[in-house]
Amino acid sequence: MSLTDLEGSMAAIISVFQKYSEREGDKHKLKKSELKELLHDELPDLMAHVKDQSTLDSLMESLDADGDSECNFQEFMTFVSMVTICCHEFFEQEDE
Amino acid sequence: MSLTDLEGSMAAIISVFQKYSEREGDKHKLKKSELKELLHDELPDLMAHVKDQSTLDSLMESLDADGDSECNFQEFMTFVSMVTICCHEFFEQEDE
Repeated sequence: MSLTDLEGSMAAIISVFQKYSEREGDKHKLKKSELKELLHDELPDLMAHVKDQSTLDSLMESLDADGDSECNFQEFMTFVSMVTICCHEFFEQEDE
Repeated sequence: MSLTDLEGSMAAIISVFQKYSEREGDKHKLKKSELKELLHDELPDLMAHVKDQSTLDSLMESLDADGDSECNFQEFMTFVSMVTICCHEFFEQEDE
C-alpha cells in the first residue's frame, strides 16, 4: 500500500513522536528530556534559537495543556501545527 | 539542504495545501471544489466514507472557522491535526 504525500506526512509525525516517547517512562508521552532530544534532532533550525533551559521550560509548560509535566500526542500535534502555520506565513510573505 | 522527517512532513503539508489552493480564485485559500479534490486525491481512505455532498458540506462548514466559505491554511492545518490525532489514537489502541 502506498501512501499519498499527506498520508505520509501524518504517518511521519506519529512515527517521530513515538520514536522519542517510547524511550523512557510512559511510552505514550514525551517527558521533558525526550521532548528536548526530539526538538534538537528534528527541528535543528528552530532549536538554534533556543539557547537556554528556561526557554525550553516555558515551551514545555505552554505545550502541556493538561498540566501533567509531560507532552502527549495531542499536545505535540498542536505544537507541530503552530510551527507549520508560522512557516507557511513566512513563505507566503516571501512569495508576495 | 536536507530536511529531517518532521521538517519534511511540515513542508509536505504546506505544499499539498498550495498545490490545490493555487488552482482557482484566492491562491491562499481552498474553495469547496479545491478542498474536495484535495481530500479525494490525498485522503482517499477517509473519503471512501464520505458518500454524499451533505457530509462534505458539513466538513467544509466545520473547518471554516472565520465563515468566509473558504478554507485557509490555518483551518486546513487544524483539520490535518484532528485527523492525525484520530489516526494516532487508532494505532495506540491497536498496540495495546
